Formats: sequence, C-alpha cells, structure tokens
Amino acid sequence: MKGGAWGITKKFIMRNKIKIGIVGYGNLGKGVELALNKNTDLELEAIFTRRDPQTVQTINSKIVHISEIDNYIDKIDVMILCGGSAKDLPKQSIKIAEKFNIIDSFDTHADIPYHFNSINEVAKRAKTISLISAGWDPGLFSLNRLLGKVILPDGKDYTFWGKGISQGHSDAIRNINGVKDAVQYTIPIKSAIEQIRNGQTPDFTVREKHERICYVVAEEGADLKKIENEIVNMKNYFSDYNTKVNFITEEELKDKHSAMPHGGFVVRSGNTSANVKQRMEFSLELDSNPEFTGSILVAYARAVYKLFKEGKSGAYTVLDIPFSYLSPKSGEELRRELL
Amino acid sequence: MKGGAWGITKKFIMRNKIKIGIVGYGNLGKGVELALNKNTDLELEAIFTRRDPQTVQTINSKIVHISEIDNYIDKIDVMILCGGSAKDLPKQSIKIAEKFNIIDSFDTHADIPYHFNSINEVAKRAKTISLISAGWDPGLFSLNRLLGKVILPDGKDYTFWGKGISQGHSDAIRNINGVKDAVQYTIPIKSAIEQIRNGQTPDFTVREKHERICYVVAEEGADLKKIENEIVNMKNYFSDYNTKVNFITEEELKDKHSAMPHGGFVVRSGNTSANVKQRMEFSLELDSNPEFTGSILVAYARAVYKLFKEGKSGAYTVLDIPFSYLSPKSGEELRRELL
Repeated sequence: MKGGAWGITKKFIMRNKIKIGIVGYGNLGKGVELALNKNTDLELEAIFTRRDPQTVQTINSKIVHISEIDNYIDKIDVMILCGGSAKDLPKQSIKIAEKFNIIDSFDTHADIPYHFNSINEVAKRAKTISLISAGWDPGLFSLNRLLGKVILPDGKDYTFWGKGISQGHSDAIRNINGVKDAVQYTIPIKSAIEQIRNGQTPDFTVREKHERICYVVAEEGADLKKIENEIVNMKNYFSDYNTKVNFITEEELKDKHSAMPHGGFVVRSGNTSANVKQRMEFSLELDSNPEFTGSILVAYARAVYKLFKEGKSGAYTVLDIPFSYLSPKSGEELRRELL
Repeated sequence: MKGGAWGITKKFIMRNKIKIGIVGYGNLGKGVELALNKNTDLELEAIFTRRDPQTVQTINSKIVHISEIDNYIDKIDVMILCGGSAKDLPKQSIKIAEKFNIIDSFDTHADIPYHFNSINEVAKRAKTISLISAGWDPGLFSLNRLLGKVILPDGKDYTFWGKGISQGHSDAIRNINGVKDAVQYTIPIKSAIEQIRNGQTPDFTVREKHERICYVVAEEGADLKKIENEIVNMKNYFSDYNTKVNFITEEELKDKHSAMPHGGFVVRSGNTSANVKQRMEFSLELDSNPEFTGSILVAYARAVYKLFKEGKSGAYTVLDIPFSYLSPKSGEELRRELL
C-alpha cells in the first residue's frame, strides 16, 4: 500500500520530440509551420531566413538568420527545406545535407536523377539522411503511378492537375513587358476526365487534357492585344494549350485570386483478363496547396528521423519509404487500428 | 570486325525469374494465375490443391496435390496462399511459412495481430519472409487510411465498400434453413457519399453508410416470409442495416449474379488551419474482385522475394513495404520515369 507494487510498476515514459528546422519562410515554410502545430511528436526549433529576421513575422515561432544555422547542428533532427526548385534547392539541399538530415520538395522532374545522385554522395559521406522530392507531385502522385503500374501492368495511367495555380506559368506571364502581375490556373478538361472514368483509355494531346486561364494586371497604357499574343504563343508554356487571357484590375487579382487551391488525380485503368476492367484512382482537392505540401513534408520528416536513428545514410525518395515510417505509432498499434 | 569490340561488349544479361507457387485454386487462386500471365519477371511453377489434381482444370498451369509441396522447397521462391481466412489461412500460413516465403490475404480484421505474431515467430525461426493481409482491404485501403491520418491529423476518414458481393454475408444466408443459394451485395449510400465529398465530416451509424441487397434462391416449398425475417434480423450481419431480400430462380442467380464486381473508397477530410480544408481520396472500381486481389498479391510477392534476398526474415504487412519493392524496375529507373 505504501509504494509497494504501485511504486515498482509505475513507469515514466519520456518520449523526446523530434526537433525540426524550417529553411525558407515563404508560402511553403508557413505551411510547414502550421502543420507542425497539428503534430505533437514534432517540435519546431527555429525557422531560418535569408532576410533580416526582424522584418519577418512568423505565426508563433522563433526565426533566425540563415548564417546562424551551424549553431543548431546538435539541436535539430531534421531540416525541412522550403526554397524554390529553380534557384534555391539545387544549392541549399546539398550544402545543408552536409550537416543535417534534410527533406526537400524538389520538383523539376527532369533534374531529379541528378539532384538525387549529388545529394546521395554528400549524405553518404556526412552519414545523414536526405529525402528529396517529397510533396504531392512529385510525391503522393508518383506513389500512385507506381502502384497502378505494378498492380495493373496491362493498363494505362493518366495524371490530371487542377483546378489550381501554376507558379511557373504565373511567373512566365509576369516576365512579359507591360505585365504588372498575373495568376495562371491549370484546369483539367471535364470531357477528358469523363472518358477516363468511364473506363476508356484514349491517347490525349496535351491540349485535350488541360486548359489554361490567365488573370493579368497590365501596366497603364500597355498594349493588351500584344500581351495576349505573347502569352498564348509562348513555347513550352502556353502554345500547346487552349489559353484564355483575362485582364483585370490589381484589386480584383488580390481579392479573388490570392487563395492557393489545387488538386488533381492519378487514375489507372487496366485489364486483368479479357474484358475484365479494373480502375484505381487517387485524388486530391486542396484549399491550400502550400499547407497540404507542408503537411506531407512534416509526415515524411518523421521517416527521415527514423531512418537516421537506424544508422542509415544517403538519399531517399518517397518510393523508398514504408508508410509505417510516417506514423508516430508502433507497428503493433498500426496493425491493430488500421489494417 | 571479327568479334573485336562487339564480341567484348556484348552482354547476355540473365535475369532469373521469380518462381511462384499458388496454394488453393478457388476464385482467388485463378486470379493470381491470370495476374502472373501479365508479369514477365515472375513465373508460376505449380498450383497446389487439396482436391484430386486430375479433377481440376487450370487455365494454363501445372497443378499438383498439396501433399507434394515439400518437393518444391528449392524450386519456389514465394508461395501465394489463396485459401479462406476463416478456416484455411490460420493453419496453412503458419505451416507453409516453416519452409517457404509466403504471402496471404488474411482478412479477419480482429485476428490480424494474433495471426501476425504467430507467423512472425515461425518465419523468424525458419528465416523466411511472410507478408500477411495483403489485398485491397486490408491492404491498399489500410495504406490510404494511414496516409490520410499522418498527413491530415486534424481530420476524419471514411471507408465505403461496394457495390460488391460480400462472401461472408452470402454464406450466412446460405446457412439458413430453406435457402438453396444466395448472393449479397453491399451498397454504399449515395447521400452519405455526397456529404463527405462536399467536405462534411458527419458521424454516421452503420445503417447510414451502407445498405444490403440479397438475392435468394429458396428450396421448393420453403416459407419465404420466415427466411426473409431470419435474414433481416440476423445479428452482426444484417440487423443494423436496411436490408432488401429478393427471391429469384436458380437460373437468374447464375445469369445475373455470377460476376464478382466490387470497389469502394477511403476518403480523408481535414483542416491544415482554420477554414482551410483538404481532401484525399483513394477509390477502386473493379469488374472482378478476385482478379484484382490476385494482382495485388503478385506485386507484393516481388517485395517478399526482395526482402528474402536481403537476408531479412519474419512477418510483414503492406504498411512495412516501400512501393519501390513492388516494381521490377531499379530505383534509378523509377526515379527517372515516375517521380
């Protein structure tokens, strides 16, 4: 009664939290900060920025200058890199992988093999883990493309994106002379989706799958006809698509086009024998693309930490990670609750 | 020119096929046989049956009596077990795991932890790999439930099944006195699906998610009213659902209800911040449930083989397997083609 069996069997289980750093505080960095607020087994240690930290307002977190990052080597388990794929990540990921476990959302599809190999070399040498190209495409959509192909090898898959804003296409418009600001929506074409959902497997041209709608704020006195022509004929970006250009005011752009919805789906249709059709589909409908991508990065940060604790090193992608590594629960709990 | 550089650089790459055995030749066994015809890196060595092999017609494969299984220890890399979860697998999986790598589709949810632990012990001792409970539920749906929970922890998920035949419910009806044969369809309720797809997260009773429709062939002179009452009031199976019973002839049952379509979906809706909603959905539409499940088992047999080649042993579930293990392609190919 006085201590006794109670005293002996009482256990204090101290589960340390996984310490996270965020590098870069744009839309994605904010998305990661919000996602960390929803996960109690991870803790945000600091956000790193190239700007003057005094000028940056976070939601509820500490922010320091990127030059201080080496002071955090023993304090942070996983760095979540939130820079852009065009200019930031090719350098940042490699540099930071020399000293930290990292995860990035590098999404320049054609350069992924090179990015992977460069980082693999650094991370192997540094004995750190780098998970690259996490997010929803590349990421969850890649997983579903793989799953479709291995389960239904005699089949065909389709990826559709949208309705959502393409940052790359919006930037391309902004670079045109006479354009003050712009937003571009990628929109999947309904009739194409219907054909696929009915089990058909047509060969589409790019024009038949998506259309592009642009909202453009022109400089005062700019030649609107000329801007429109430059947009719809722009190679690699618009010339292969049906593109609609709408000129609007700066106020309207801010009011109606500041949200960042997105989504899309991967569908695989295939035959397992003559006349026996099977269809698999994975779809997303997102109010906020950066908050959702941030939430994926946080779940995969858990996997990075687990791999590191196992003594592994080198570069990984989502294709290499068992889903059980994404959860704070034990294998036993997952089998009981989710299988 | 005579040999020279050509002779030196010419390579014959001998890639051995993964040798497969099928245990049990019902609908699922046939589905696995068909799936193996679609995958060139795996080869069916033999099908094992408890029946007299002379009386069993396969599509294009060798069939032998189960008593001969030990003669195949060096000839088969992975045994795909296609027996039932109620009576066959609890014994068969354990027995066969003593000598072979196995994969099963054990689907009695409540007994999965026990099944896992028993087989883990055997497989660790035998130094073999056992992947249990593969299929689409448990299986692909379990993976998506896990993914939804880790990416959107502040959310709610729903699993719907159908329209499709439930073998367990069909069997329960067949056991009623006066019933000659029966088929039961599980049907998801449209209004419930619509609420969820609109982003609502209601609490449903079981009755509000699915209804059950039964097609019953009665014995001559049986009391139809009594049979119907027994069905709709059957505890655990029907009493919590709205159930419709239709009496039909044996011919109609055979003509209209011999196909085995199924499907369903897992949807997760969650918030990443106040008023920011995100939705993930994974859905299946299947002309043939056993052929699709067979195709999943074949893809996961590849993973079992790879784990075994790595020197691993013990029990696994789909939650423990990276998707890259399901593919015959190398990590490099997958990153280049699918990410």
